[in-house]
Amino acid sequence: MIKHFALIAAGVLSLHTATAQKYVDASTLTIIGRTCPMEGHPYYRVDTTRYHFDNATIRRYCGYPAGVAVLFTTDSRRIEARWTTTPRNYGWNMSPVLQRGMDLYIRKDGIWTMAGASRPGPEATGRHSSAIIEHMDRETRECMLYLPTWSELLTLEIGVDEDASVTPLASPYKHRVIVFGSSITHGASASRPGMAYPARMSRMTGIEFVNLGYSGNSMLQPEFARLLAETDADAFLFDAFSNPSAAMIRDRLDAFVATLVKAHPDKPLIFMQTHWHAAGNFNKEAAQFHRERIDTADRMMRRLAKQYDNVYFLDGEWYYGKDSEGTIDCDHGSDLGYDRMISERLPRIRKILRKYGIR
Amino acid sequence: MIKHFALIAAGVLSLHTATAQKYVDASTLTIIGRTCPMEGHPYYRVDTTRYHFDNATIRRYCGYPAGVAVLFTTDSRRIEARWTTTPRNYGWNMSPVLQRGMDLYIRKDGIWTMAGASRPGPEATGRHSSAIIEHMDRETRECMLYLPTWSELLTLEIGVDEDASVTPLASPYKHRVIVFGSSITHGASASRPGMAYPARMSRMTGIEFVNLGYSGNSMLQPEFARLLAETDADAFLFDAFSNPSAAMIRDRLDAFVATLVKAHPDKPLIFMQTHWHAAGNFNKEAAQFHRERIDTADRMMRRLAKQYDNVYFLDGEWYYGKDSEGTIDCDHGSDLGYDRMISERLPRIRKILRKYGIR
Repeated sequence: MIKHFALIAAGVLSLHTATAQKYVDASTLTIIGRTCPMEGHPYYRVDTTRYHFDNATIRRYCGYPAGVAVLFTTDSRRIEARWTTTPRNYGWNMSPVLQRGMDLYIRKDGIWTMAGASRPGPEATGRHSSAIIEHMDRETRECMLYLPTWSELLTLEIGVDEDASVTPLASPYKHRVIVFGSSITHGASASRPGMAYPARMSRMTGIEFVNLGYSGNSMLQPEFARLLAETDADAFLFDAFSNPSAAMIRDRLDAFVATLVKAHPDKPLIFMQTHWHAAGNFNKEAAQFHRERIDTADRMMRRLAKQYDNVYFLDGEWYYGKDSEGTIDCDHGSDLGYDRMISERLPRIRKILRKYGIR
Repeated sequence: MIKHFALIAAGVLSLHTATAQKYVDASTLTIIGRTCPMEGHPYYRVDTTRYHFDNATIRRYCGYPAGVAVLFTTDSRRIEARWTTTPRNYGWNMSPVLQRGMDLYIRKDGIWTMAGASRPGPEATGRHSSAIIEHMDRETRECMLYLPTWSELLTLEIGVDEDASVTPLASPYKHRVIVFGSSITHGASASRPGMAYPARMSRMTGIEFVNLGYSGNSMLQPEFARLLAETDADAFLFDAFSNPSAAMIRDRLDAFVATLVKAHPDKPLIFMQTHWHAAGNFNKEAAQFHRERIDTADRMMRRLAKQYDNVYFLDGEWYYGKDSEGTIDCDHGSDLGYDRMISERLPRIRKILRKYGIR
């Protein structure tokens, strides 16, 4: 939008017209961020043949590659993508590029650095094609492409110059922390996939924070407890109190925690308090709903953290900031809200992880 | 998205079903943020009968109410909106709520506080209806509703309880600063209308920063110089270097500044350097394009700031942060990028404004 005829005049604006000479199937490259990979569905976060959910939304979200990234090395001067998603309308409180687009990071002087976004096409078709970056020097680069957060990804091809190489890049992450949670974890409403807080914390720390966010459906269900109990990781982080009501927390939290402690007795299990929802600033019913569940979670988690050595509770509900400017819709963080959240939560998370040699 | 059945269970989720008993035409209330109001088009920022632009996009943008807000007082327990916009597809790098939605602030203990967002409907129709906030106490409140940034607003009605009053609220702003600029000023890609940087700076300072952003079209044109010369304000702030090429800046800047100095010899005219565009991190052509125009603007503005007493230059291109995490697409700020920008720019702007008694 900023470019228009100034950049056309300058010859810069061939961008966003896909004209690659060679395409590589991304499923042949390295794929990170999946909890349990599924045969035949390379971009699914969870194997839905192994874990059955009665709820159709949860089943669908298992296939959304939120937090999943493709890693590759290339010496192409230009990188593009062609991809297909299930046709769906765009949600109102998230950008289309977060929902159906992608963003590319390239390692520069050891730091993963934003290189370009791939713009999704008209929502009706689910077919997309976009340049991501062009006019680079011809040198070998390490690339991380974050996949769409709010749609199944049916196919993905990476486009490069005819004479360029594309090879799988080994994951830069040694340790893996599963982050289970709500829309907040899933990515709503970061500006683009790579700005969801687990992805951003991964780049900041060198520890992989795997996104297992299920928007609106993180309700301490026994099926999720089973999935997490059977999942291998170095630690678990829970955004567990953003969806359930106080009654659900009372009914389900003890059993949920007990299942996880039994399965992972030596791994840190870190539970985060949910944020104060600005919807409660003026809406008295919303205020009461949020206050009750925050208080319930606080009371129960303090007891559970005493009961189990490896259970931790990060209290405090103001991590989006007290000025209510950190959300898009009173509920979901913007990049600003998540930046504030990371500033407050991440040092506390890392302090716990360090006790377990995770750094 | 976070609500779903937990909140339905709790009885909170009747939200977003418009069921108001009474509607008030918003054009009968106080409207702020217009540069020159236009008869018959209450939400236009600029009177297009008075200022003619050959460019059709610029003409259209004159009618987009970016930064325009409706001010009213009401004692309704519930506030809703019904509105119509020109049917257009959603842009890929902005949320639908920024483009066609609205956000409501209510004054609480003297501070404008986010109360709720109004969700736009399917883009094909241009017809929208949404609850914004409900279940409030029955007390009189001061309200500021920011209008859509990326569409003409054809009609707008505020919905309230049958027995509630709705009255115009006087503007809280004494001083007025016109902000002329690019998509950055226009609002791309803040999360919602009220998070565009001029709107946020207004709430932070109590000084009205009027949004005259023309995405992709802020090119130092003589027509804009004339519009700004004839516009009354206490000060002018320019995001003038985000769209033009170095050649355009060389050709047009001197005349543009001379016109404004002649028209406003005693008003501060503050020019901001454009930000470093992360597109240039790896794209060598983009890097050269941005570097040339930044250097050109820097050199010329230093001279002009010496030449004219009331011309100021805010140098520096790193206000989105050096980590390249402040944009949605390498060009346009997110709420995080704009938060960083405001932290760096606003103290410098206020220091200049204070010299002129604007505080």
